[in-house]
Amino acid sequence: MSIKIYDLAGADPARRFSPYCWRTHMALKHKHLEFEAIPWRFTDKEVIAFSGQGLVPVIVDGETTVADSWAIAEYLEEAYPGKPSLFDGAAGKREARFLKHWAETILHPAVSRMIIKDIYDRIDPKDQAYFRESREKRFGKPLEEVVRDREAVRADFQKSLAPARNVLKEQPFLCGEAPSYGDYVVFGMFAWARNTSPFELVPADDAVALWRDRMLGLFDGYAATFPAA
Amino acid sequence: MSIKIYDLAGADPARRFSPYCWRTHMALKHKHLEFEAIPWRFTDKEVIAFSGQGLVPVIVDGETTVADSWAIAEYLEEAYPGKPSLFDGAAGKREARFLKHWAETILHPAVSRMIIKDIYDRIDPKDQAYFRESREKRFGKPLEEVVRDREAVRADFQKSLAPARNVLKEQPFLCGEAPSYGDYVVFGMFAWARNTSPFELVPADDAVALWRDRMLGLFDGYAATFPAA
Repeated sequence: MSIKIYDLAGADPARRFSPYCWRTHMALKHKHLEFEAIPWRFTDKEVIAFSGQGLVPVIVDGETTVADSWAIAEYLEEAYPGKPSLFDGAAGKREARFLKHWAETILHPAVSRMIIKDIYDRIDPKDQAYFRESREKRFGKPLEEVVRDREAVRADFQKSLAPARNVLKEQPFLCGEAPSYGDYVVFGMFAWARNTSPFELVPADDAVALWRDRMLGLFDGYAATFPAA
Repeated sequence: MSIKIYDLAGADPARRFSPYCWRTHMALKHKHLEFEAIPWRFTDKEVIAFSGQGLVPVIVDGETTVADSWAIAEYLEEAYPGKPSLFDGAAGKREARFLKHWAETILHPAVSRMIIKDIYDRIDPKDQAYFRESREKRFGKPLEEVVRDREAVRADFQKSLAPARNVLKEQPFLCGEAPSYGDYVVFGMFAWARNTSPFELVPADDAVALWRDRMLGLFDGYAATFPAA
């Protein structure tokens, strides 16, 4: 029986865009595990109430339910030790942890300020009122105003990518010669943007864009099969 | 015969402040190696000409000369495999590499903009003309103007520390339960500031400041024995 993942989807059920669910997609592919990604919307709280909380990703693997992308990665690593490792040991897990915090504290706020209105335009109509209200409360202003200065946000965002850019001039993946969970964590941010917004985060010849393209090509181009905005 | 390190010093020869030399100090302590840190000034180019370049740190270990802090760490790791590892394997080295680029592209420019005038005030008088000219060329303005808005730079700098701060809420060192080379790379930035400037980079109760204090306490308080500005 394949693993089920409850996966944030837009009005188009093929549009899968949660940066956290993308971590899980890539982790499952990395481990060569069969899975079924069930489209889920922000307001489908009751559908995942069995997990004890209201956010995706949630996976169900036989009798086991796990929520939270990091906990899911740890679970997969422990439950499937014979499959390719997501972390390559304790030191690799520490690197992934730093990249996780870097992605969440530096990349996420900036990307959010560039694409939040484009996300709104592509989510399921039943989610729009919830999304607008909760995000406008967080930003303290209308979504239209949040993205108004996104060219300036992009300039700062591109500067903030410098450590990744420099690493990627030395090696093909953030985690070395091959991708590892830290790559998936950061890639989640770019997949989120790609699948919800036509706004280009980085020039096509940036070392980070070239890495993103390599990530899109992994596992027979798995992530690239999802529709870009 | 102990290892020699050519080590950037101020007017007070006890003031050792290069962020790159600090990486090497801590790496040598980590490996329990005896060393002698020879005070060197920016304009003492001929003193290290034997290394084929003009920057410190340079180490001389018997017949071997190594320049560049990263190359020195790699050398020490290979030459002294029986001593505690600086990297804990390939994955740990990759983490240190990301932290290196993060420190150099994000932390270094910001710290520099806060402390550059304080450094000028504490370097050897024979270095001051060279230092002012080269740094003012780099910044495109007088040192006094560079640091004028340092409170604003500090606010952004503190935000940029978010990934480290969050990691340090989960574990005592950037590299886990014990310090590793990635910690020394980032610590170099804080030792540089501590030893040249009274300007406080982070509040004393910040998780990053508490980590810096732990780093100062390592190896019987080695780094803390150097005079703070």
